[in-house]
Amino acid sequence: MFYHVQTLQFEAKPDRPDPAFAKRLQEILGGKWGELTVALQYLQQGWNCRMPGKYKDLLLGIGTEELAHVEMICTMIARLNEGAPLSVHEAAVADNPMTAAVYGGTNPQHLINNGGGGYYQDSSGVPWLGAYTTSSGNLMADFHLNATAEMQGRLQVARLYNMTDDPGVREMLRFNLARDHMHQQQWLAAIEELKADGLEGLPVPEAFPNDTEQNTDFITQYLNCSDGTAAGDGRWASGEMPDGSGRSFRYEDDPQPHGDRPVLPPGDPRLYGTPRPGAAPEHPATE
Amino acid sequence: MFYHVQTLQFEAKPDRPDPAFAKRLQEILGGKWGELTVALQYLQQGWNCRMPGKYKDLLLGIGTEELAHVEMICTMIARLNEGAPLSVHEAAVADNPMTAAVYGGTNPQHLINNGGGGYYQDSSGVPWLGAYTTSSGNLMADFHLNATAEMQGRLQVARLYNMTDDPGVREMLRFNLARDHMHQQQWLAAIEELKADGLEGLPVPEAFPNDTEQNTDFITQYLNCSDGTAAGDGRWASGEMPDGSGRSFRYEDDPQPHGDRPVLPPGDPRLYGTPRPGAAPEHPATE
Amino acid sequence: MFYHVQTLQFEAKPDRPDPAFAKRLQEILGGKWGELTVALQYLQQGWNCRMPGKYKDLLLGIGTEELAHVEMICTMIARLNEGAPLSVHEAAVADNPMTAAVYGGTNPQHLINNGGGGYYQDSSGVPWLGAYTTSSGNLMADFHLNATAEMQGRLQVARLYNMTDDPGVREMLRFNLARDHMHQQQWLAAIEELKADGLEGLPVPEAFPNDTEQNTDFITQYLNCSDGTAAGDGRWASGEMPDGSGRSFRYEDDPQPHGDRPVLPPGDPRLYGTPRPGAAPEHPATE
Amino acid sequence: MFYHVQTLQFEAKPDRPDPAFAKRLQEILGGKWGELTVALQYLQQGWNCRMPGKYKDLLLGIGTEELAHVEMICTMIARLNEGAPLSVHEAAVADNPMTAAVYGGTNPQHLINNGGGGYYQDSSGVPWLGAYTTSSGNLMADFHLNATAEMQGRLQVARLYNMTDDPGVREMLRFNLARDHMHQQQWLAAIEELKADGLEGLPVPEAFPNDTEQNTDFITQYLNCSDGTAAGDGRWASGEMPDGSGRSFRYEDDPQPHGDRPVLPPGDPRLYGTPRPGAAPEHPATE
Amino acid sequence: MFYHVQTLQFEAKPDRPDPAFAKRLQEILGGKWGELTVALQYLQQGWNCRMPGKYKDLLLGIGTEELAHVEMICTMIARLNEGAPLSVHEAAVADNPMTAAVYGGTNPQHLINNGGGGYYQDSSGVPWLGAYTTSSGNLMADFHLNATAEMQGRLQVARLYNMTDDPGVREMLRFNLARDHMHQQQWLAAIEELKADGLEGLPVPEAFPNDTEQNTDFITQYLNCSDGTAAGDGRWASGEMPDGSGRSFRYEDDPQPHGDRPVLPPGDPRLYGTPRPGAAPEHPATE
Amino acid sequence: MFYHVQTLQFEAKPDRPDPAFAKRLQEILGGKWGELTVALQYLQQGWNCRMPGKYKDLLLGIGTEELAHVEMICTMIARLNEGAPLSVHEAAVADNPMTAAVYGGTNPQHLINNGGGGYYQDSSGVPWLGAYTTSSGNLMADFHLNATAEMQGRLQVARLYNMTDDPGVREMLRFNLARDHMHQQQWLAAIEELKADGLEGLPVPEAFPNDTEQNTDFITQYLNCSDGTAAGDGRWASGEMPDGSGRSFRYEDDPQPHGDRPVLPPGDPRLYGTPRPGAAPEHPATE
Repeated sequence: MFYHVQTLQFEAKPDRPDPAFAKRLQEILGGKWGELTVALQYLQQGWNCRMPGKYKDLLLGIGTEELAHVEMICTMIARLNEGAPLSVHEAAVADNPMTAAVYGGTNPQHLINNGGGGYYQDSSGVPWLGAYTTSSGNLMADFHLNATAEMQGRLQVARLYNMTDDPGVREMLRFNLARDHMHQQQWLAAIEELKADGLEGLPVPEAFPNDTEQNTDFITQYLNCSDGTAAGDGRWASGEMPDGSGRSFRYEDDPQPHGDRPVLPPGDPRLYGTPRPGAAPEHPATE
Repeated sequence: MFYHVQTLQFEAKPDRPDPAFAKRLQEILGGKWGELTVALQYLQQGWNCRMPGKYKDLLLGIGTEELAHVEMICTMIARLNEGAPLSVHEAAVADNPMTAAVYGGTNPQHLINNGGGGYYQDSSGVPWLGAYTTSSGNLMADFHLNATAEMQGRLQVARLYNMTDDPGVREMLRFNLARDHMHQQQWLAAIEELKADGLEGLPVPEAFPNDTEQNTDFITQYLNCSDGTAAGDGRWASGEMPDGSGRSFRYEDDPQPHGDRPVLPPGDPRLYGTPRPGAAPEHPATE
Repeated sequence: MFYHVQTLQFEAKPDRPDPAFAKRLQEILGGKWGELTVALQYLQQGWNCRMPGKYKDLLLGIGTEELAHVEMICTMIARLNEGAPLSVHEAAVADNPMTAAVYGGTNPQHLINNGGGGYYQDSSGVPWLGAYTTSSGNLMADFHLNATAEMQGRLQVARLYNMTDDPGVREMLRFNLARDHMHQQQWLAAIEELKADGLEGLPVPEAFPNDTEQNTDFITQYLNCSDGTAAGDGRWASGEMPDGSGRSFRYEDDPQPHGDRPVLPPGDPRLYGTPRPGAAPEHPATE
Repeated sequence: MFYHVQTLQFEAKPDRPDPAFAKRLQEILGGKWGELTVALQYLQQGWNCRMPGKYKDLLLGIGTEELAHVEMICTMIARLNEGAPLSVHEAAVADNPMTAAVYGGTNPQHLINNGGGGYYQDSSGVPWLGAYTTSSGNLMADFHLNATAEMQGRLQVARLYNMTDDPGVREMLRFNLARDHMHQQQWLAAIEELKADGLEGLPVPEAFPNDTEQNTDFITQYLNCSDGTAAGDGRWASGEMPDGSGRSFRYEDDPQPHGDRPVLPPGDPRLYGTPRPGAAPEHPATE
Repeated sequence: MFYHVQTLQFEAKPDRPDPAFAKRLQEILGGKWGELTVALQYLQQGWNCRMPGKYKDLLLGIGTEELAHVEMICTMIARLNEGAPLSVHEAAVADNPMTAAVYGGTNPQHLINNGGGGYYQDSSGVPWLGAYTTSSGNLMADFHLNATAEMQGRLQVARLYNMTDDPGVREMLRFNLARDHMHQQQWLAAIEELKADGLEGLPVPEAFPNDTEQNTDFITQYLNCSDGTAAGDGRWASGEMPDGSGRSFRYEDDPQPHGDRPVLPPGDPRLYGTPRPGAAPEHPATE
Repeated sequence: MFYHVQTLQFEAKPDRPDPAFAKRLQEILGGKWGELTVALQYLQQGWNCRMPGKYKDLLLGIGTEELAHVEMICTMIARLNEGAPLSVHEAAVADNPMTAAVYGGTNPQHLINNGGGGYYQDSSGVPWLGAYTTSSGNLMADFHLNATAEMQGRLQVARLYNMTDDPGVREMLRFNLARDHMHQQQWLAAIEELKADGLEGLPVPEAFPNDTEQNTDFITQYLNCSDGTAAGDGRWASGEMPDGSGRSFRYEDDPQPHGDRPVLPPGDPRLYGTPRPGAAPEHPATE
């Protein structure tokens, strides 16, 4: 269950409006790597977590904080959209290329649909999608995704930081950068803790009987299907594999097929594929 | 540029049809963590990679292999769909609950749209989406995603393995498990190589001036916004942070807001938000 | 069954082209609250309506009119897109900020995909979605949605009206405003008629046994989960409830949980969740 | 900013697993009228609300409560999915049609992707979409939508109630029914309060100059474009209009077009529409 | 402008309910090749058609007819959904595999969202999408698409015909088959007429200066990038090309690259791609 | 199985950056008629093709070539995005309308998400969708779609050609135009070959028993549901039908309904449709 305080976790006040930046800021609200994604993903993983205790608490703790970030960015967007030029005529007043750039860079839905407010869509205006979150039930797989999400997210914030010189906007982004920094560290630490606790190792899922059930003939080769030969120089092409199995990577520059040339069955004639059957399908009698 | 051989990378032959399993197998063809995602993601990252050499070669090498996996699974699906009961009537022949289960578990689009073949949709029939791939231009962020994708993917294959006892299907899945095992290892090794080469460290993006531009007051605290206190016991709540900065994690159980209670400006009256202006908006003269 | 006359229901002729406005106008053609939504929603509700007579007739009557609005707006868009600057070079001719604004504000798909015509996508270019329409089979719920749709729609038209001073465009929008005005009134009247006819009351669905089957302990409290205390002053927090039940609203400022702290079962080991079982899963024997 | 307690707002414990019902229950978690929609919609409206005080508080108060409902349903789903038959073989054990029905009615992604947990997708497995929420900035339009959402939502819960006889599931649904009942009442009361406060009337948006700017010739006629004549008997076809304007509804059974038969301009020859220009387009010279 | 008569274009009455078939029938209502697609596509092409006369009339004439087909199928679905078993318990009554199959094959949204009616979604429950229609402005390209749509549509109807033996359902499908037959013929005839009228030839767009502006070195070779050598035997690999240019097809079995190995520029350092710049980006001073 | 060479099939080098054109070029990478669509569609049809030999080889041969086109366009986009103005401030430097136009016409995701690279989304930024491809199993239906795709694709390339005067970009587009020209010819030739080989004729599917199972009363009439009378003059309204059946087209200007006015059954009371049942539904007893 949730409780809300209306005071923001951190300030979200631009020094001046910038509707074109408001459009761009949507990426970290409703984009695939935005705050809504991480909030809902961590909560979902927390709710679905089958083991009470520190991992579940961690997921719910960070997930709840992220909701506050959605709130801050939505507030910032509503403020950035003030005074947007409504028409081409207004955009071109006094032969002003800056206003023209703003007009062209504005998201029309901010005005037409939202009356200037933010929404759950990305910087192209594409709606946020429930498929952006993952909660697999396997914490090792999911913590890797969470660390990734904080990296992609912080990268986007850093880029947005370079797209504005508004002190108030940058103040908020500085806060977001710090929290994404912290959360990157936390998920990486949690990965180590999972290993230390003996709960899950590599490869994921560790419990699958690797040596008996998977095809051990195909675990160690880098099958280089492109003609870039430098790939053979990487750590991933020779030396011991990091899974602790004692196996070594092998580089294979000319990978060959191991299957055969497939021939499919002709198909049910009632589906009229090509080749069609010589005769028309028999229809079940009706009545 | 690409070349294709029709021989499959590995065998894709079920011992018997199972249209309900064909529906489920779509998840690893056209689901968000399926083979199409990794194929197109690695290729996209490779094409966008600005540094010639081993990293670019690695991306294009594995990306190209993954196309062969899409092909194998699509072939398997076409074979699994043979002899699907077309109607409820057929499904219930001889009071057979197995056929009833198959009928209910079949994807109707396999028959109606595809004539029994596979397509780029997931196990719910939701079309694959271009937003599932990411190519950020930052290899550290992207390699973490790639490692994650192989974990989520292998997890799904392992689950599907337990959903069938068909020897031919399992034979193919054993191959997929091995390749996902290998690719997990490779992306993890590539992360280490990036660090060893001094190209990128943590937090991503490392080049952003962490100590001067981000808000250093908020880098180290775990702000526990849920009431699960066990989270304070984790590695992520005390001790040195893994970023090598010498900072330590801190646990904060009662996080407070640092912003203020936002009040938004009244908005452009021409957008008719509430509160509306006392008078009607002035319309620009026409003509 | 439908018949079409090519004469438009009302004039759709701009005085001059404005491709940037054409992009914006898409919102009321193919946006979630646009004319296509209401046309297809009312028709769907009409076709699914199980009671012959005035309600069914009303739905089909208005739904059919809305198709004419889609037609008018599509025609208007094709005319507004005339003479769009095709390239940045053309946009910047004579250092013209107005042309630059137009170029930046144009939907490229109008030109590349449609040859200047309209399509079923919104002002961000996001395709219209079948999920935008609802036909629940319960007319009270659906008429409330219909009234809402006309409100959201008229609001958007009024905003668009303020984004252009083209007399011809405004002439068409004046017509749309009037029809949305009328339809708002009609759906509100239809809600009253449903009550007067004794077909459905509040809460929806009225036929559900409110006093015996729902949890009557939780019908009347406003559980204020945010810290905004002014909400206690509203009509929704004290006094008699509008459902005629004789119950009164109550304001509860400190809502408490009534469930317990959930602990989930460990999950099927064959799905490899965390915590994983001590041993590897048992696989069914395969011949 | 948000705080979370792990105790559920209300109990979410089924008496026995039912994976097929878990699939159906997704509709009120991640469907267009589900709990995620109302939670995120009310919060978005609250954050974008430009008027501090009771309306903003109301939106944030209820929005926060709805998050607790998402949590309850997600928990319920994880419990209902226990023991799902993994394969057709298991589904058909002992010739059991009930297990067959369960197998066919299960969402495969619950198992393959989520390890048995819930996610933000609907009962067909279609991902939740950011476009499902609306925050127009006009409270009258939005409160009507909110009331509608509670009606559609309660209707769906009532139907789901009739799709199970599990006492534990029904216990939770009884709670949901009560809260949807309450929230229907509240939004209807809030509509009245907006009018009483003089903030917004009908038609929405009231501030648009109805008598001068919209086309007053088209405000009052019901233009019956279908051949159902009973529609003329409704309250929406005669008598005073509910907007207080003193105007009366009129019924028009044979509505006529008022525009003309549109002829579009030939289009830019560089877009190669039909009719194509006699000659090939002139291409700009290229250096 | 449109007029509607409530009488159906053709009968839509099943002899008995079959909710599982109702789910499947959605494909030709709201699937990508369904009736909604062709109705809205032909109308859109008609509205956007810049040439008054027979082609525009044809598009609007058939487009309007297709709306009647949407109506028929929606009606059929509402009737097929009667008496659907609501719960697993009901599905398993009397150990009946047929009911179990029906339960598993039913679309839960038909019941939960629609109260038994049809909607604009396909047989997997995926919402219809505005991107399914195309109106390019080039009639030759679009008539080819229209002919294709009727082929794909008729193929799906024929398959559905074989999935039921209900006489009433088949009666309706027989009508659909005939109309799809007719419309296939019409669009193919319209392609010939376009050529005969000298309005458009092949390749599309004919007006593009084929011999001067496109790269004439690459017009005639079949570049066989797969290892299937039989492709060299087809009509597409030798002999005169059908475009009347007098050129001949050529078969090239070992196609070579003609570009070079791309090296991308290092990218803007403010976007933090890899390789990152030696130093951190310079941030614009803020005040 | 696939092999990749890093050398491009053809050069992809602009003479100068143009981020606004980069946005537009996305249409032929990730739009519905773009290169990704044709690549994945032809491969899917090839993999699902049940007849070994020339048709399967053709599909796989061209499908593989198209992957090279995706690669070229992605490379071109990464080069066009160089030096994009990051902020409005930069866009307006020196009062430059050209930069303003560029800024407004840029896709923000190219910078924020991709670091300047391309992705699988269209020119509006809408993600590519698996539903864009079709593989019906019936080669006649699919070859018509393939020919259409090359027409729509070539049309879009020709339009893009007129939106730039950059010699390097045009050089690449000239290549694309030629290949789309060639592929149009090939699919048209393949249609003829299918007929010549006796594998499939018209109407599709030919094997459906046209004269006995479809409703032969409705095969020949053009039912003109719009009031455009010129449609009666076309080849599609009189004369022999092209299917070789000897039947003639007939023109019917006043098409009549042949069904009846549908009345739906009242519906299951447990779904609470209108009309609701007099009494509340009976709920199954719950222990």
